[in-house]
Amino acid sequence: MQDYIKPDNWSIIEEGFDAERVKSSESLFSIGNGAMGQRANFEERYTGETFQGSYIGGVYYPDKTRVGWWKNGYPEYFAKVLNAPNWIGIEVLINGEQLDLNTCKKVKDFRRELNMKEGWYQRSFQALTSNGVTVKVRITRFLSLAIDEVGAIKYEITPVDSDAEIVFRPYLDSGITNEDSNWDDKFWNTTGISSENSQAFIEAHTMKTNFATCTFMQSQLYHQNELLDTALEEQLGDTSVAFSFKQKLSKGETLALHKFGGYTVSTNHDRSDLVAAAKKVLKKATELGFEHLLDGQMKAWADIWKMSDITIEGDVKAQQGIRFNIFQLNQTYLGKDSRLNIGPKGFTGEKYGGSTYWDTEAYCIPFYMATKDQKVARNLLKYRYNHLKKAIENAEKLGFSNGAALYPMVTMNGEECHNEWEITFEEIHRNGAIAFAIFNYYRFTGDYTYIPEMGLEVLIGIARFWQQRATFSEQKQQYVILGVTGPNEYENNVNNNWYTNYLAKWCIDYTIVQLGKVKDGYQEDYKRVMGKTKLTDGELSKWKEVADQMYFPRSEELDIFLQQDGFLDKELITVDDLDKKQRPINQKWSWDRILRSPYIKQADVLQGFYLFEDHFSTEQLEKHFDFYEPFTVHESSLSPCVHSIQAAKLNRMQQAYTFYLRTSRLDLDDYNKEVEEGLHITSMAGTWMSIVEGFGGMRVIDDKLSFTPRIPEEWTSYSFKVNFRNRILRVTISHDGSSFALEGDQEMSIRVNGKRIALSPKSEISV
Amino acid sequence: MQDYIKPDNWSIIEEGFDAERVKSSESLFSIGNGAMGQRANFEERYTGETFQGSYIGGVYYPDKTRVGWWKNGYPEYFAKVLNAPNWIGIEVLINGEQLDLNTCKKVKDFRRELNMKEGWYQRSFQALTSNGVTVKVRITRFLSLAIDEVGAIKYEITPVDSDAEIVFRPYLDSGITNEDSNWDDKFWNTTGISSENSQAFIEAHTMKTNFATCTFMQSQLYHQNELLDTALEEQLGDTSVAFSFKQKLSKGETLALHKFGGYTVSTNHDRSDLVAAAKKVLKKATELGFEHLLDGQMKAWADIWKMSDITIEGDVKAQQGIRFNIFQLNQTYLGKDSRLNIGPKGFTGEKYGGSTYWDTEAYCIPFYMATKDQKVARNLLKYRYNHLKKAIENAEKLGFSNGAALYPMVTMNGEECHNEWEITFEEIHRNGAIAFAIFNYYRFTGDYTYIPEMGLEVLIGIARFWQQRATFSEQKQQYVILGVTGPNEYENNVNNNWYTNYLAKWCIDYTIVQLGKVKDGYQEDYKRVMGKTKLTDGELSKWKEVADQMYFPRSEELDIFLQQDGFLDKELITVDDLDKKQRPINQKWSWDRILRSPYIKQADVLQGFYLFEDHFSTEQLEKHFDFYEPFTVHESSLSPCVHSIQAAKLNRMQQAYTFYLRTSRLDLDDYNKEVEEGLHITSMAGTWMSIVEGFGGMRVIDDKLSFTPRIPEEWTSYSFKVNFRNRILRVTISHDGSSFALEGDQEMSIRVNGKRIALSPKSEISV
Repeated sequence: MQDYIKPDNWSIIEEGFDAERVKSSESLFSIGNGAMGQRANFEERYTGETFQGSYIGGVYYPDKTRVGWWKNGYPEYFAKVLNAPNWIGIEVLINGEQLDLNTCKKVKDFRRELNMKEGWYQRSFQALTSNGVTVKVRITRFLSLAIDEVGAIKYEITPVDSDAEIVFRPYLDSGITNEDSNWDDKFWNTTGISSENSQAFIEAHTMKTNFATCTFMQSQLYHQNELLDTALEEQLGDTSVAFSFKQKLSKGETLALHKFGGYTVSTNHDRSDLVAAAKKVLKKATELGFEHLLDGQMKAWADIWKMSDITIEGDVKAQQGIRFNIFQLNQTYLGKDSRLNIGPKGFTGEKYGGSTYWDTEAYCIPFYMATKDQKVARNLLKYRYNHLKKAIENAEKLGFSNGAALYPMVTMNGEECHNEWEITFEEIHRNGAIAFAIFNYYRFTGDYTYIPEMGLEVLIGIARFWQQRATFSEQKQQYVILGVTGPNEYENNVNNNWYTNYLAKWCIDYTIVQLGKVKDGYQEDYKRVMGKTKLTDGELSKWKEVADQMYFPRSEELDIFLQQDGFLDKELITVDDLDKKQRPINQKWSWDRILRSPYIKQADVLQGFYLFEDHFSTEQLEKHFDFYEPFTVHESSLSPCVHSIQAAKLNRMQQAYTFYLRTSRLDLDDYNKEVEEGLHITSMAGTWMSIVEGFGGMRVIDDKLSFTPRIPEEWTSYSFKVNFRNRILRVTISHDGSSFALEGDQEMSIRVNGKRIALSPKSEISV
Repeated sequence: MQDYIKPDNWSIIEEGFDAERVKSSESLFSIGNGAMGQRANFEERYTGETFQGSYIGGVYYPDKTRVGWWKNGYPEYFAKVLNAPNWIGIEVLINGEQLDLNTCKKVKDFRRELNMKEGWYQRSFQALTSNGVTVKVRITRFLSLAIDEVGAIKYEITPVDSDAEIVFRPYLDSGITNEDSNWDDKFWNTTGISSENSQAFIEAHTMKTNFATCTFMQSQLYHQNELLDTALEEQLGDTSVAFSFKQKLSKGETLALHKFGGYTVSTNHDRSDLVAAAKKVLKKATELGFEHLLDGQMKAWADIWKMSDITIEGDVKAQQGIRFNIFQLNQTYLGKDSRLNIGPKGFTGEKYGGSTYWDTEAYCIPFYMATKDQKVARNLLKYRYNHLKKAIENAEKLGFSNGAALYPMVTMNGEECHNEWEITFEEIHRNGAIAFAIFNYYRFTGDYTYIPEMGLEVLIGIARFWQQRATFSEQKQQYVILGVTGPNEYENNVNNNWYTNYLAKWCIDYTIVQLGKVKDGYQEDYKRVMGKTKLTDGELSKWKEVADQMYFPRSEELDIFLQQDGFLDKELITVDDLDKKQRPINQKWSWDRILRSPYIKQADVLQGFYLFEDHFSTEQLEKHFDFYEPFTVHESSLSPCVHSIQAAKLNRMQQAYTFYLRTSRLDLDDYNKEVEEGLHITSMAGTWMSIVEGFGGMRVIDDKLSFTPRIPEEWTSYSFKVNFRNRILRVTISHDGSSFALEGDQEMSIRVNGKRIALSPKSEISV
């Protein structure tokens, strides 16, 4: 666990320069605006270790698959998150010498701040250059929420002890590479470089996918806050363009470069229009100027926080943790564009490739449903509908037929992006999470329209898959599901993973109910969908047979469901009894040893109990929690939040709090020693769940919000807001009780600890 | 199935030139002499598709591992079979134009012959060059058995219709690449190129492993069979050296180049001596001359055939098949050098990397024991003893301790060369095959000395591994072995693979018995081994506990052992009922579908019944054969031979014969459409077994050879020879009976169909 981020309610702050931490901080201080994002790379030259990354939502590259040993069925190509041309670069020369924190004589007062409240990132330091000049530097940067194609940088420099000649050389560069490239392919082809006055443009398109982009910049120079009309010198390279501004400064004077830059992309503009579109964006941004644009940024973030903030009193680290999580989720995805989704690393790194995992449905949708307009969650569901055809093709590649759909484990464009057979082919429970999200969306928003319009087709594809994927065991006289990997990826190719079997049965049952509802209430849609899917009664009765006769592994003796066949043959040594030196087992043990151990990477049976909480009694939950929790190593970022919610439900608040801390500060404290690769964006939504659903005990029961408020001892109070069916409810919970404040002008009825409470508009009730 | 090889008792013959077949024929016509080998690449320039390969026994390169997703425990590097510098090259210019079968106007009378009886390879053709000259060409090539560092080529050319100026440009080239390289590393570093008179030398060493080699050549030119003293012109490149000889030929005259070449290697000579050693070899070879060297070759092969030939009367294709198998095994490994082993592709390709699989112990040792001096098999066992330390290190990497040994799945130098977790980490039955080979060697040769000297230590390491690898199941109150892959690689990560569990128990039991025998009969060795291994009584009783309480999956209802836990949950559709279009499933189905199917890649339970035949009754064998055979797809080259032997034992001769054909002509008829990658060398020993052990019914029972002779209907008779404890027995079997002829001057007692027969020296008895 690293621990260099200062506790602060609203900001992420690092003090002191440590070259070893540069890559980690580049991740932690990442900025994004839903449409694009970038790691906190230095603007000026830096020759130390760095991981350069600037990403455009939806722009990817189909990299040729690399494996040790090819298995039939692997995708030939898959979508990689793509490092885009650099527009932030500003070379700084001081009396002719490059400013470079890696080579200068001394760096002091180094400080980074990511101001989450206002949505900007600032870095400041004093540097003593090799040629003996001390300069004070401060850089402020943000990606505009208001004009989401543009970002702005203010680079201020002040010689401290002597006069100095400063050269600023802002540049664009499309000669960039990806860290995570399989075959050292060239990803970008530069087709045009142009400049006009203080503006420059690089046109480049991605190879193969042919996304066209224009990377642009415009710079303004201020001396002592006065705009200069300095002569600039243009430098053109094969894949770069730079301007040089030169200015002599007297000791104590400040020179500031305001740089505006960003991308226009063919996904949003005509290919031939990209430069023109860039000029428009630059015009808007420069007319506003850096400070006004920043004002707008602060207001836009204030709006986001107004709805999505969670306050925690009495525990700065917990407060900082949850705000960091909420901030990053909003930097990654704002729900404006149904072509985008929530990448596991967001815009903070390349690892994993693809942008969409089952994380979206299982973890992210609840957050977006409760803190945004319900259209945002609907867009996420629509994304999967748009990929249905590819999911059917994907299933066909694996031998399924007749419209059975298997959604990919990882995807960018609907095609599979992963190539470990035990995951790609076997971690099929993802299909269930997508069906569950449809159910969950309706349960929470009350908006049924998605199902007749789109969801029913998705459900039919998924139900068909489950029916075909199950095997009738003559021996058991029941349907079994062989050769799967459950959510617990520390088991591969197991038979009858309880979670998967349970989800499969539920998907079929749920689809059959929806077929009836759509048939009754949406005849036109029903006819359309039946015509398209050619679903027959014979098929339906096969579905029913599989669902009704599904086998569930179970121990009569222990009275628990078994994670999979044979689980009890393992040597059942609990995590507590495992030598700490052996942890994390995924770094210390060979894969076979992990597989035959009883250790669970993330909630599996308990994930099922989480999704289908109302199917089981609290006693059953307790029994299963007591059995599985001791074997769970939580080496997935998606695990502690579910356990936290369940521990809270079981009134084990200390345990719930421990899990909460682990999930909320996973990246800030770098629990897994990998933050330099990027942040764990999707699990951040789990942190939100562990407060709202865990401590707050929020559920939707019979179309109403219900709460069972609890609070960790360490906290004085906490509060969160929920948008439930267009009613905004603020919930505040302290040790003395809870209060519920309703905004707007519609009344609302909720349940608190099982008791019904009627809330009037603009009123607050304490319980 | 391809079918372009002409049936012939002693030769492999191809007629007609087909560019599509070049790579396949390069494999089929490969030559080797145990110390080195090469694919049948053309000597002259060829611009068509080709797969260049010349290999030196024991010279490998540790290529950095490439995987899609890294699993903890994978080897960082592993040994690749290495394409060595080219010494066969001879450019041929006809009136200034390169002879190139890919670009010349016409090729006719193209013929290849691999003469297995005499050990040479010949290629002949007529070509019409673009500049209008027709030449007749014949090339004869062999790798000398007598002087195993040298090979010889006779390249004869005759202009047919006109005079012509011929240039021969024999060359050496170390600027070669490997087909199967992970990272396009440079594998060879050339350090010296020199020439002297008509001799040339390239000194080059492999990167990382630093094997030093001298590749050498010397050429002689004959005009109408008369040695010419032509002036030669030397051409030096960065990694090559060539000589040019120019000669005008009148129509009908023949010019012949005799080229001698090969390698001297630092594994056999002082590094500084390689050129001197090469000169010595060249002196020997050229003094003999091509024809005498070839005479010696024929004699050496006659000696090999004298002992190892199997004759089949009445079935040319079967005859050709078995001879091809025996020939290739002898080309690959002659048992002279205990540092070498039998690579799955021999010297015919690069695929798979490494040189040693469990194939050696399970399939090859019986062939070498029966057809060579017993030292050869002992050398193969010694090879594993020499790798014991590395096997212990390998087990340590996977979390085992206290001297437990896990031999690698694939190796060159004792280190693991494979990186699929389901095989590398889980196909642990290989350890059992190594123990079984020790048992088998003693059973066949009666030479117990290997065990006290070396084998006991190997057995202790293996027994320790099994004891540690087993898990006590509280539920079953027995020991289980979780997470393995059996010989049937179409199942991964299964629990309680019967074959593995059975072998594990047997290994422990056998080791305990050997401990007693060595303690009683070889006190010195016993003391040494105990001192070294620090084996305690406590450990022994743990071993016994595991062996005595091992769990074996079984169906009471069907009265059979189950391949693994849960096998009966599968949808048990037999191969016959599977659509033929779905075959081979490893090309048609995705991996998950294969895994959950009931289809068996190669004998698994039946492999156990093969190894431990005397532990089970014939009725049991029949029951298991009838259950498992219908699900076996034989998509491993190692499978049909075992089924052939068992079908013969069950007197199902038609089935046994079908399996025999499939194993014996696997490569000749290219059943698996992959012969261009190289030959399946190790499975060739299985073909030998299917005749000797299958049809001949040969077993060792109570220190005596025993036979149950059978013969396929298609054959008139067949015969084979066996060296049993230094007695040479020739067995001839026809439909009328069998005869047994004993060579040498010691008597021998055998059993035929259970009846004891005493054989006098130099006598023959018919039954």
